[in-house]
Amino acid sequence: METSRPLDTLNKARNKRVIVELKNGKQFIGKLSAFDIHINTVLEEVEERVNGEITRKIGVVFLRGDTITMICPE
Amino acid sequence: METSRPLDTLNKARNKRVIVELKNGKQFIGKLSAFDIHINTVLEEVEERVNGEITRKIGVVFLRGDTITMICPE
Amino acid sequence: METSRPLDTLNKARNKRVIVELKNGKQFIGKLSAFDIHINTVLEEVEERVNGEITRKIGVVFLRGDTITMICPE
Amino acid sequence: METSRPLDTLNKARNKRVIVELKNGKQFIGKLSAFDIHINTVLEEVEERVNGEITRKIGVVFLRGDTITMICPE
Amino acid sequence: METSRPLDTLNKARNKRVIVELKNGKQFIGKLSAFDIHINTVLEEVEERVNGEITRKIGVVFLRGDTITMICPE
Amino acid sequence: METSRPLDTLNKARNKRVIVELKNGKQFIGKLSAFDIHINTVLEEVEERVNGEITRKIGVVFLRGDTITMICPE
Amino acid sequence: METSRPLDTLNKARNKRVIVELKNGKQFIGKLSAFDIHINTVLEEVEERVNGEITRKIGVVFLRGDTITMICPE
Repeated sequence: METSRPLDTLNKARNKRVIVELKNGKQFIGKLSAFDIHINTVLEEVEERVNGEITRKIGVVFLRGDTITMICPE
Repeated sequence: METSRPLDTLNKARNKRVIVELKNGKQFIGKLSAFDIHINTVLEEVEERVNGEITRKIGVVFLRGDTITMICPE
Repeated sequence: METSRPLDTLNKARNKRVIVELKNGKQFIGKLSAFDIHINTVLEEVEERVNGEITRKIGVVFLRGDTITMICPE
Repeated sequence: METSRPLDTLNKARNKRVIVELKNGKQFIGKLSAFDIHINTVLEEVEERVNGEITRKIGVVFLRGDTITMICPE
Repeated sequence: METSRPLDTLNKARNKRVIVELKNGKQFIGKLSAFDIHINTVLEEVEERVNGEITRKIGVVFLRGDTITMICPE
Repeated sequence: METSRPLDTLNKARNKRVIVELKNGKQFIGKLSAFDIHINTVLEEVEERVNGEITRKIGVVFLRGDTITMICPE
Repeated sequence: METSRPLDTLNKARNKRVIVELKNGKQFIGKLSAFDIHINTVLEEVEERVNGEITRKIGVVFLRGDTITMICPE
């Protein structure tokens, strides 16, 4: 029986929609297209939400890992 | 007699319910399914709580280690 | 089938216009001319925006990586 | 004559009661059961105190090292 | 065709006047005389500005890299 | 002629009384019994002071290096 | 023709008076007696100033590098 690692969870979420929350409270909802060990993350077809309101639609966004608090597969 | 290490405590809590608190004050209560040496952590069947109130139910959440202050096995 | 990495996204955006957001809330819109693994970034023909207002035009700007939250190719 | 190192002090406090203070002002008083070079720390039979008031009793708590300011053996 | 790196931009600005902005909002305008990979930076013949007002003239200043947000060649 | 290093100053202060100031403004005055390259520091026979007032007497305290701003030999 | 590095500037300032500013806004003016690559710094014959007012005279002070924003040779 193998032990799972946190990045396995992100790996399974590739090409699926995820919610990413930043330290500044913003949320980004989009398709997870890439990440690395620093948790630098790229989303596609993205909605930015602030306090639950959609504030912007973005084709592609690169998020620097150290600004991310959590990532939820939908 | 062996000396225990902090990650041993997390290891024993695998697949059990834990409370995770973040620097921004949010709590996540769920089953600990994975962690690594940076304390990046994955929970399953999760409740998010803010000021003791359940604010969200989440299937799976990846929490970036540097945003975590404490983890309590229930 | 190869797996893409976050810096590939920045690589594809070279010499194209991007929006860079900093932790202090400022935005810089300009042509991405260089970046490195720390996400230190150089933009050319840049507009600085604060709260959506253009506050400055800058020929070239070096942005220190740890101050960046996100980079969006336009 | 040997020179003592800071972690020797923590080592001597193993299995004894200590007070741990976090950057967010919370105190945790409990038996020091484990620590590592990052000062990740595990306490057992723990009281959480905020402004001197006991706010919670916890069986076991893992505290991430970078959130800790000080540890006092009682 | 070679790919440029962010520090190349700083290298080209050596001995020229640059504007450096810090995380605390202060600006330093002076001749860039040295920098390293941490972006530790030395300026000569420097004006310190706070909210656009000149607050001090300084012969030489060493700025610690992690306090810098941006550097603009004039 | 040899060049002195910052840790030499701490070394000379071993077993002497020092004032340690933290990022949160607290002061700890006590005998410097140990330190390491991260500036993790152990004091003995300690007074904690907040705004110049003695708020606590502590036998031994371990202070995490990254929370320390300055150390003054008395 | 050799390229100068930021630490060369600090080296030239050894045993001369410098102004050191911290992230918390405090200034320390004194003779630079030692520094290292982390910019941990030791000053001698020191004045602490807050908002331009002398608040303390100190024989020797060790300043942790990550709390320093700038160092100016007088």
